[in-house]
Amino acid sequence: MAQTTPNHTQTVSGWAAHDKSGKITPYTFTRRENGADDVTIKILYCGICHTDLHHAKNDWGITMYPCVPGHEIVGIITKVGSNVTNFKEGDRAGVGCLAATCLKCEFCQEGQENYCDEVQFVYNGIFWDGSITYGGYSEFLVMDHRYVVRVPENLAMDAAAPLLCAGITVFSPMKDNKLLETKGKRVGIVGLGGLGHIAVKFAKAFNHHVTIISTSPSKEKEAKERLGADDFILSTNADQMKLKKRSLDFILDTVSAHHSLGPTLELLKVNGTLVIVGAPDKPIDLPSFPLIFGKRVVKGSMIGSIKETQDMMDLCGKHNITCDVEVVGSDRINEAFDRLAKNDVKYRFVIDIADGFSPSKL
Amino acid sequence: MAQTTPNHTQTVSGWAAHDKSGKITPYTFTRRENGADDVTIKILYCGICHTDLHHAKNDWGITMYPCVPGHEIVGIITKVGSNVTNFKEGDRAGVGCLAATCLKCEFCQEGQENYCDEVQFVYNGIFWDGSITYGGYSEFLVMDHRYVVRVPENLAMDAAAPLLCAGITVFSPMKDNKLLETKGKRVGIVGLGGLGHIAVKFAKAFNHHVTIISTSPSKEKEAKERLGADDFILSTNADQMKLKKRSLDFILDTVSAHHSLGPTLELLKVNGTLVIVGAPDKPIDLPSFPLIFGKRVVKGSMIGSIKETQDMMDLCGKHNITCDVEVVGSDRINEAFDRLAKNDVKYRFVIDIADGFSPSKL
Repeated sequence: MAQTTPNHTQTVSGWAAHDKSGKITPYTFTRRENGADDVTIKILYCGICHTDLHHAKNDWGITMYPCVPGHEIVGIITKVGSNVTNFKEGDRAGVGCLAATCLKCEFCQEGQENYCDEVQFVYNGIFWDGSITYGGYSEFLVMDHRYVVRVPENLAMDAAAPLLCAGITVFSPMKDNKLLETKGKRVGIVGLGGLGHIAVKFAKAFNHHVTIISTSPSKEKEAKERLGADDFILSTNADQMKLKKRSLDFILDTVSAHHSLGPTLELLKVNGTLVIVGAPDKPIDLPSFPLIFGKRVVKGSMIGSIKETQDMMDLCGKHNITCDVEVVGSDRINEAFDRLAKNDVKYRFVIDIADGFSPSKL
Repeated sequence: MAQTTPNHTQTVSGWAAHDKSGKITPYTFTRRENGADDVTIKILYCGICHTDLHHAKNDWGITMYPCVPGHEIVGIITKVGSNVTNFKEGDRAGVGCLAATCLKCEFCQEGQENYCDEVQFVYNGIFWDGSITYGGYSEFLVMDHRYVVRVPENLAMDAAAPLLCAGITVFSPMKDNKLLETKGKRVGIVGLGGLGHIAVKFAKAFNHHVTIISTSPSKEKEAKERLGADDFILSTNADQMKLKKRSLDFILDTVSAHHSLGPTLELLKVNGTLVIVGAPDKPIDLPSFPLIFGKRVVKGSMIGSIKETQDMMDLCGKHNITCDVEVVGSDRINEAFDRLAKNDVKYRFVIDIADGFSPSKL
């Protein structure tokens, strides 16, 4: 499916999955020359998102191998094209999931280009020139500047990386459901992983009452003490679930494992909204009774627009919000994948791309 | 579970299911004396709702036998209590699903009493006095006047009966999603049965573009010619479904059989809303991708409030909207049940309660 494009002349070292084993090994490939609208970014850190595992193992049946994952990318701009006026060499830059959109449709025009019907992602996508996109598990990236944001100076680069996907994925539905304009709402967050932990930080920064809903009793202490959550519901405990029936205004469901929405919906007040941002590979069970009897709302939300991502970054700079990360060397990506599959991370792995283990330095 | 209450002194003839065979036979029981807040209604017609079948056969595991179904009730008021000022003897009255609510909560106070957490239904519910409620398959009804509406003089009583459940069930989400305030929206209706056919009439009366989405090719002609629908999509035809991707603003899903929402959600524009009003006994399949990629919304809606029901009735009077019904004698309820189970009705069975087959007249 990949096309050979004459201007893909820059050799880059990276890491790729080559088959559905999902094993990551060093991989050398080419990127395009820096065009008039492009910036080149020397990558410093790249977060490991659960989506990377799904793609590496072809869980969704859509992977084009070899696959260079990574869409939580931060680095330093090293080159800018002639049409680029908003970035200069040396700027701290971030790149998330989006690599190309049609630029013409209503969503592209109105700053919702993440919902463009022709959206292409930063890896396992098809760029305008017909080439397959390769992500952030690599030493540098050439990106159209319209899909690049600035990283505030006061944020640590490694801890900021996961904001580009995990962060914006939970920020956008909060903004969309007016949690930035109100205070004191009862907010529930299902799942305390990469997405959930940053959702707690945002919801607390926006002055809401935050309840973590989790299947792990061990997470109660850390949810409250480490992250500042106000309440905790053990979702496997029917009594606790019943006690908190009709108590929440808004729920963010970050779980990507197969699950039923029924018990969670019962926690919502009448007219309450649950937003799904996880993407289980099998359909979610949606019992009609709790939906109907409570006139409840289930919404989807996919990452966020570039403008929203920049707004989030600026807000993170203001509130000094970053992710809790475990930085791993680029020689430990497979180990991190294995641990992530077991949810053994607090709360996001970030690869130190510029370390000495980079293939080009070995 | 039924309690004997001393004031249940009025003997009434009706029809009940006695076990999960769902077979309906004549049944004599008692109703309470007409209290200060009550009206007594001589029942003329009662629609047969799919819910009646579910209850008769205990499909949801919640039936208290003997069960007298019926919540699409029209008749003439024969008695009014001393506190009742808005009805008088001889008035044309309608009763739907609601028999009792707490009267105190925010939903009762704000005219959304159908979402009261203590809502009790007109049959298979527990009334304030502890008695089991018995529905409209019976010769008369004693109802608190707060759950009774007027039927406009120009509407035929038999054809108006299904408005009390089928009608309000589709009217309320249309009103809630602002289809009464706007024009020219692209509205999809899934399923062309008792609910679907009246939804088409409402959507056309409110000047929207209406598409029927159905698994039955035979319904295209009648949807367009008989009911005035503008378009038809055969949901089993993948090409038709793909062609109409991202084309609808709002979808009302009236199907109560088990189904997946995935293909239907793809028909919605980004930010579009699908409202579920059918109640399948198994969870609906909700694939996350079409929800997330289109930022789509799935909502539940349960019947409507008494105020909304009266508003709908008045609007039906103004636009001369009634249901397409097949009237059956009270000796043919089981036959109607069997045919309804096969969707063999255009579009709603209505029982002629006051006919000569009434148990008290045989």
